[in-house]
Amino acid sequence: MQKGEFLYEGKAKKIYATDQPGLVWIEYKDDATAFNGLKKGTISGKGELNNKISAYFFQLLAQKGIESHFVQLVSDNEQIVKKVEIVPLEVVVRNIAAGSLAKRLGLEEGTAMQQPVVELYYKNDELGDPLINYYHALALGLATREEMLYMEEMGLKINAILQEYLRDKEIILVDFKLEFGRVDGKIILADEISPDTCRFWDAETREKLDKDRFRRDLGGVEEAYQEVYRRLTGN
Amino acid sequence: MQKGEFLYEGKAKKIYATDQPGLVWIEYKDDATAFNGLKKGTISGKGELNNKISAYFFQLLAQKGIESHFVQLVSDNEQIVKKVEIVPLEVVVRNIAAGSLAKRLGLEEGTAMQQPVVELYYKNDELGDPLINYYHALALGLATREEMLYMEEMGLKINAILQEYLRDKEIILVDFKLEFGRVDGKIILADEISPDTCRFWDAETREKLDKDRFRRDLGGVEEAYQEVYRRLTGN
Ligand SMILES: Nc1ncnc2c1ncn2[C@@H]1O[C@H](COP(=O)(O)OP(=O)(O)O)[C@@H](O)[C@H]1O
Ligand SMILES: Nc1ncnc2c1ncn2[C@@H]1O[C@H](COP(=O)(O)OP(=O)(O)O)[C@@H](O)[C@H]1O
Ligand SMILES: [Mg+2]
Ligand SMILES: [Mg+2]
Repeated sequence: MQKGEFLYEGKAKKIYATDQPGLVWIEYKDDATAFNGLKKGTISGKGELNNKISAYFFQLLAQKGIESHFVQLVSDNEQIVKKVEIVPLEVVVRNIAAGSLAKRLGLEEGTAMQQPVVELYYKNDELGDPLINYYHALALGLATREEMLYMEEMGLKINAILQEYLRDKEIILVDFKLEFGRVDGKIILADEISPDTCRFWDAETREKLDKDRFRRDLGGVEEAYQEVYRRLTGN
Repeated sequence: MQKGEFLYEGKAKKIYATDQPGLVWIEYKDDATAFNGLKKGTISGKGELNNKISAYFFQLLAQKGIESHFVQLVSDNEQIVKKVEIVPLEVVVRNIAAGSLAKRLGLEEGTAMQQPVVELYYKNDELGDPLINYYHALALGLATREEMLYMEEMGLKINAILQEYLRDKEIILVDFKLEFGRVDGKIILADEISPDTCRFWDAETREKLDKDRFRRDLGGVEEAYQEVYRRLTGN
């Protein structure tokens, strides 16, 4: 596989073409942003860790029948994935109130939800990724009703799989964000699953093992990402 | 009917008991608030106009088979209604982007929606009445799934009825907010339908005939409410 021309870049990853039309080359960056880009920084080693952690989760999910864009790792901070047309919706699944959910509903951070809460956000930096509902998404033509039902269902399935898996690793899955993409007439899981896009808490101490350490200046950011990787893989 | 003890009071109305247990006495106030109570003022004549306009809409809807809490007018600014347990959800239906919808979706105010957009807000002043979805409402125990489906369906029906009716009065129904309540094991329409809770635009000039005149300091607030009443009733 050959790395081709640079295609585009987001806050955490760069996308390049490959010599195969249906595949793209993703480079995970050390760049960290929070609060819709207002806070910027670097977490050294993040690109490498998120690349490997994402690959690990995608492979785990594949074993459980969840199709994703992941194809193969090509270096410490790069992976090959299927090129998709990203659905401009962020699908968030939450088991415990934290961040914007705690604020929106007036719940104390750490409050367990009786059942998982699924949310759709319009992926639009300019608007600050607002929470939306089905009517909004349909009005903007972001996705069809069937696509949204499917993505929510997948979100709940992935939640059940990851939650169970992480429980064994002494990690509480607080919440996470997924992105999906269209390819070959269907919708598959895309983007990344990493401490940038999940909230992970240590099961015993409830210590944060995710990007909240960066968002809230808690220190030990790189170490937390490293610890998640270690618990998953033993490395 | 006898006006009984004062029960409670909101930003726009006072609720009193009556000598019949299932009925309450609503007094419409001239008090006006906006931006979740941050802006306060008085619109002289508003209590009277909103009382009469609400009664008018509730009677119109009753003719079309929509059950509401409305029983009868008892004075210029008072009406008797069925006492309900208010569902703490605001059901908003929108035909044209304005206010928070325009902001949330990055649409220019005045953009027509292809189909009506329905939204649920958690009726909670402290939290600033946040937009929520079904999962949030279920997590907070605000309503059942069936109740939400029913309220949204009613919202769309009411929209169709009011939109058609107001078209003849040269008024564009931009959007409106409804509240529903539980009584006798069912859900009925409650609260008010007035220029405080709807956006009405003149069909020709697109002049605002609603609380946006107060929110945005456009002047002629009382006159706008009066004009809506005049177009509905000829008085
Ligand atoms: N399989 C894929 N095919 C095409 N684009 C993808 C794929 N997976 C992720 N992307 C997109 O790559 C871009 C870069 O990712 P990222 O840096 O995380 O962006 P963002 O700043 O939007 O979070 C994003 O727009 C993301 O949706
Ligand atoms: N039929 C009813 N029975 C009981 N309460 C009602 C009924 N209709 C409306 N209410 C409630 O009366 C209160 C006063 O109304 P309002 O002044 O508009 O309050 P708010 O400040 O919440 O907008 C509100 O809590 C409203 O939900
Ligand atoms: Mg991203
Ligand atoms: Mg009110």
